[in-house]
Amino acid sequence: MIGIDWGSSGFRAYRLSDDGSIRERRTATSGIASLTPTDYAAVLQQQIGDWLRDDPAAVVLLSGMVGSRQGWREAAYAECPAGMAELTTQLCPVELGDNRLAHIVPGLSCRNADGTPDVMRGEETQIFGLDLPAQATLCMPGTHSKHVQMRDGRITGFATAMTGEVFALLKSHGLIAAMLAPADSKPEDLDMAAFETGLGLSGQPGGLLHHIFSVRTRRLFNELSAGAAAHYLSGILIGHELRATAWAGKVVIVGTGGLAMRYRKAFAFLGIDTDVAPEDAAATGLYRLGQLAARRMP
Amino acid sequence: MIGIDWGSSGFRAYRLSDDGSIRERRTATSGIASLTPTDYAAVLQQQIGDWLRDDPAAVVLLSGMVGSRQGWREAAYAECPAGMAELTTQLCPVELGDNRLAHIVPGLSCRNADGTPDVMRGEETQIFGLDLPAQATLCMPGTHSKHVQMRDGRITGFATAMTGEVFALLKSHGLIAAMLAPADSKPEDLDMAAFETGLGLSGQPGGLLHHIFSVRTRRLFNELSAGAAAHYLSGILIGHELRATAWAGKVVIVGTGGLAMRYRKAFAFLGIDTDVAPEDAAATGLYRLGQLAARRMP
Repeated sequence: MIGIDWGSSGFRAYRLSDDGSIRERRTATSGIASLTPTDYAAVLQQQIGDWLRDDPAAVVLLSGMVGSRQGWREAAYAECPAGMAELTTQLCPVELGDNRLAHIVPGLSCRNADGTPDVMRGEETQIFGLDLPAQATLCMPGTHSKHVQMRDGRITGFATAMTGEVFALLKSHGLIAAMLAPADSKPEDLDMAAFETGLGLSGQPGGLLHHIFSVRTRRLFNELSAGAAAHYLSGILIGHELRATAWAGKVVIVGTGGLAMRYRKAFAFLGIDTDVAPEDAAATGLYRLGQLAARRMP
Repeated sequence: MIGIDWGSSGFRAYRLSDDGSIRERRTATSGIASLTPTDYAAVLQQQIGDWLRDDPAAVVLLSGMVGSRQGWREAAYAECPAGMAELTTQLCPVELGDNRLAHIVPGLSCRNADGTPDVMRGEETQIFGLDLPAQATLCMPGTHSKHVQMRDGRITGFATAMTGEVFALLKSHGLIAAMLAPADSKPEDLDMAAFETGLGLSGQPGGLLHHIFSVRTRRLFNELSAGAAAHYLSGILIGHELRATAWAGKVVIVGTGGLAMRYRKAFAFLGIDTDVAPEDAAATGLYRLGQLAARRMP
């Protein structure tokens, strides 16, 4: 089968063996933010036309923002609690040409404890690619971080925090942007002391809207270097994100590289144990959902 | 005397009688954000050259971001607790030409309960233009809101919240911007129901970084109209700002127009009594500081 994780800013395709192992992978920057609905079939042909021709009967499964209102075609949101079964009964077909269909995995929705609705697209497929204990708590860092509750193989609830987006906004626009050294925010070059100072501040009184102003004042009084400022700001934001959730037990961090490392360190600072999930969870999730869907397809 | 409140985005000049009443006022959009240090004297001559010629001996006092590192000349920060005396002993002279001087009122700094430094420039002058009880708590809404403690005519401490700036960032960039009707955020056209829903949400679990995501999800599920979305977002942000401070007694709101009204309604929602301070507090503050300074000048 062929699995594709197609998000706002990227395209990741996996050619999968019958046993779920990855035979080949291709990535492109053709995210849905740069496409209109009529572009998708052509982009697919351009990226993996040879895979499609090689295997005319292959199941093709898509996950991520490709199924959003701004994507190829809007797929439903399955409601929590939901497992793989709820997703594969609501697959959304799209035309590849020659009467061949691909299917988009639905997103997930839930109602938060605060009364607001919440949504995810793509993360559900990553989650079903993991091997988790019966009861698990996940943290999926990103532009829009997800905190997810799992029980018996089903997602029972989740909440989104716009940490990554607010960090990007503050880094690029407005008062604080001028206080940060331009190249000091690569997640892998973490200034641990500044990051932990920010994490510590997030536990103090005053609130997030007040704490972020200290990036300016600490720069003004030379208590913070330009190089350390973005790491300090990151600590403030991630600290506020994580402290707003009541974590129970060990947390599984689903993510890769410097950002996952940064969250792991933040959890450790708060005294919470973590594991980091293996990479390619999306490919495994697409494979498992594809296997289940194939059994249901005519 | 002549008093000038010169901020990042605006210039407000007051020609004051000996009794402190305003004889004439002029405003311009020549904020310090658009000027370099060599421009200031020329802008002053252009805006109020006739006042200066009419009264060659007039004290000229300036307050606001004109005294910042990015302004005409960097004035000191007086340290809290500070009253009018501490400000007038640290006036910063600038040359108007012909050996004539004007003086910039220093800003104020303090150390917050969370250990970070905090600063203001301009608000201190507004505050000293008010007639306050011996002990008072002020809220000064704006791009960077200030929460101020006063005792016996002195400012004992304050904290800044970047509420207005974060609102502007979210309205102009990123995910949520697309969810808001372009013209729906004028403070005077308040959608009270949406604003109060946001204020209510700010008291729920989840944290600010989570709550702001609900602008997207409530729009997605048609639980919020495009016209109401900015008011809802404003309620979330102002709610988080105000709930992060432990208010005691009646709060004096220092501000004008729709924004002051919006804060008054937010405080009422939280069960906190408020008064709204009279306008032109900056002019009165400049007058009072000018009177005190004149007694000290040779």
